[in-house]
Amino acid sequence: MTASFPTPAGYRVLERRDISAIVAEVDTLADKLGGTPDDWETSEISDGNMNAVFRVSGPEGSIVVKQALPYIRVIGEGWPFPVSRIAFEAEALERQLAALPGSVPEKLHYDESLGLLVMEDLSGYRVARLAFVKGRRFANFAEDMGAFLAHTLYRTSDFHLTTPQKKALAAGFAGNSHLCQTTEEVIFTGPYGERPFNRITEGNEEIAVRLREDSALKQAASEMKLAFRTKSEALLHGDLHTGSVMVTDTETRVIDAEWAFHGPMGFDPGALIGNLLLAAISQPGHADAADDRRAMTDWLLETAKRVWIEFDRGFRRLASEDRSEIFPHDILDAAARDAIVDRHLAAVFEDMVGFAGAKMIRRILGISHVEDFEAIGDVAMRAQLERHALRVARRLLLERREIADMDRVLAVLAEER
Amino acid sequence: MTASFPTPAGYRVLERRDISAIVAEVDTLADKLGGTPDDWETSEISDGNMNAVFRVSGPEGSIVVKQALPYIRVIGEGWPFPVSRIAFEAEALERQLAALPGSVPEKLHYDESLGLLVMEDLSGYRVARLAFVKGRRFANFAEDMGAFLAHTLYRTSDFHLTTPQKKALAAGFAGNSHLCQTTEEVIFTGPYGERPFNRITEGNEEIAVRLREDSALKQAASEMKLAFRTKSEALLHGDLHTGSVMVTDTETRVIDAEWAFHGPMGFDPGALIGNLLLAAISQPGHADAADDRRAMTDWLLETAKRVWIEFDRGFRRLASEDRSEIFPHDILDAAARDAIVDRHLAAVFEDMVGFAGAKMIRRILGISHVEDFEAIGDVAMRAQLERHALRVARRLLLERREIADMDRVLAVLAEER
Repeated sequence: MTASFPTPAGYRVLERRDISAIVAEVDTLADKLGGTPDDWETSEISDGNMNAVFRVSGPEGSIVVKQALPYIRVIGEGWPFPVSRIAFEAEALERQLAALPGSVPEKLHYDESLGLLVMEDLSGYRVARLAFVKGRRFANFAEDMGAFLAHTLYRTSDFHLTTPQKKALAAGFAGNSHLCQTTEEVIFTGPYGERPFNRITEGNEEIAVRLREDSALKQAASEMKLAFRTKSEALLHGDLHTGSVMVTDTETRVIDAEWAFHGPMGFDPGALIGNLLLAAISQPGHADAADDRRAMTDWLLETAKRVWIEFDRGFRRLASEDRSEIFPHDILDAAARDAIVDRHLAAVFEDMVGFAGAKMIRRILGISHVEDFEAIGDVAMRAQLERHALRVARRLLLERREIADMDRVLAVLAEER
Repeated sequence: MTASFPTPAGYRVLERRDISAIVAEVDTLADKLGGTPDDWETSEISDGNMNAVFRVSGPEGSIVVKQALPYIRVIGEGWPFPVSRIAFEAEALERQLAALPGSVPEKLHYDESLGLLVMEDLSGYRVARLAFVKGRRFANFAEDMGAFLAHTLYRTSDFHLTTPQKKALAAGFAGNSHLCQTTEEVIFTGPYGERPFNRITEGNEEIAVRLREDSALKQAASEMKLAFRTKSEALLHGDLHTGSVMVTDTETRVIDAEWAFHGPMGFDPGALIGNLLLAAISQPGHADAADDRRAMTDWLLETAKRVWIEFDRGFRRLASEDRSEIFPHDILDAAARDAIVDRHLAAVFEDMVGFAGAKMIRRILGISHVEDFEAIGDVAMRAQLERHALRVARRLLLERREIADMDRVLAVLAEER
């Protein structure tokens, strides 16, 4: 992980005080803020692991400025990381916007040499993961995220694009390979080995050793790694956990697509549903006298189920309305076309279950943990709930070929409680 | 099919008389031929559907000069076709040579602007398909072709390459998309519809109509089309029928990789095995008083089986010897790694069976027929043998998930005789 990556010509890491001068040079941004640079206020709001993020507020509006650093922000220069990732994020953002307007923040400006992406400010929004920790529910979450998955995955797939369009799209994201390689390591391999950044909650050392010696489990995780590398089915967000979703009571926006690449369609729903299951499993750790969190747990489980159902329904509707060239209507009747979509979605579901299991394990045995568990002060309870998640995740990976639907996924969760 | 493609700057279609002057400008080629251009003899030996091919002979040696035409040679300017395909052939030839030296003709020169590829002359060789029609057997065929498949597919796959290497390789062939699109049309779709170039042998009109109305069959062919478009598992030859293999009593060389792209690993063995089954099924049509062709039929069936067995064995050996990064030895033990390869090869076998069936049908109902049947003068017998092939191919497509090994493939062939 110590290889270095070239930065674009003219690149420099920006400080808070540098931002307003750069923004002032772009008329559309200056107009949006109103007033003059002296009226603007810049604050650093970096929150994710990777990038520097600033908010600039003016008399008439505010914007968010994201800069990709040449290393992983929370680790530092010891873990170099390519600035080029933000070019792929900017491109993915365009594709997501085209696939489903309103599902992502508006893109206001992109500066390749500084690795800068300027977007609509989502300051009224909160990170879904943190809201779930607080016990908040969002009526539109499942429907919005199901629609996001259906539209972004369908419209960037062979079901919709011509062969030259699809191959050009996939090739255009081939250069984001270092991020893919990192995903492969931290999700499918790292959690099962000795890695300096892995972290285990006190009390879970024994189950960690047992899972790291579980040959069938490691085989299953490795099979998902092979699927991650070989299937070119759709342009993925690539990191669609609940920390990449911003919500209000009525709105849902997906952010942080820097891990985007053309890969297996099951990966994005697997990431989201796996993280919803973690959220649900963690809820007893957030109970207090006023709220036992049972209703919140049920809502999260129902939401996980509905995300899939809405995705599945949306994908089928898009397929039935499409006149794309892959399955010509003069040759294949509606029943045959539906049967092809059926079988495809069954394969995507199987992958989704496997990816969900892998994503859950990596958040408990790997480098990057989640607030759902980290926020539980009682370490013994945190460890106990994590073990529940590990047992569920292990069964999802091992039984992914037998698990037929979301009800069965939820049944596994109940059986391992 | 009437879109035109840009030709490289300086491109022109060459005549026989143009060739020696071009060859004379390349010292290494002139040295190989010996003497002076006045001593050289150029003959046109175009044989495949697509390109112009010339042999230049001199006092000391001979070479083959292949020029990609801006259209399909056997059809003419009415079916434009990109000259750029020969750039992909040249690149694929390098990759095949690196994967298994001696498996392809030596590459002597490549001229991008003229769409020219100059190669070792295989004049002592014959086209395997035509030799099979004549009843000739080749002791090394199965072993050589199994090794070619194992080495070229393994070494260009995620089993061997790093993620950045694999993604760069796949992206490098994305531009050959028009040839992929043509394959998709003529193999997976065209044979099942009304297409101006489709051709049916007299007497087979009824079965053709029946198959074109067979919704389950069309669904299966379309599922193989989807696999062809979405799986990025290895750099394929892309057109590995028995007309792309040149043989002597001791040597085997694979030619004509212009359809190369990064795709499903089962496609190349499916093409080869499907065409070996066609060769076997056609043999009674070539019987005469001296040779009833039963031994030849058995040899072809045994060869089809052994191609898979040698591929499977070679792939496993390469995987067991490799220390590539995908499945680290400090995390996965040998049993787990073997199990991953097992499951992968089972999936490749299923694809191979489906692709073989699709390839067989397209040679009987589609645009491009094969000498195995065309050389049978007795039209009634030709039609009868083609029907045998169609019944076998249909079952391969429909039963590909249940067919476990090559013995079962051969049993289907016997059951439908």
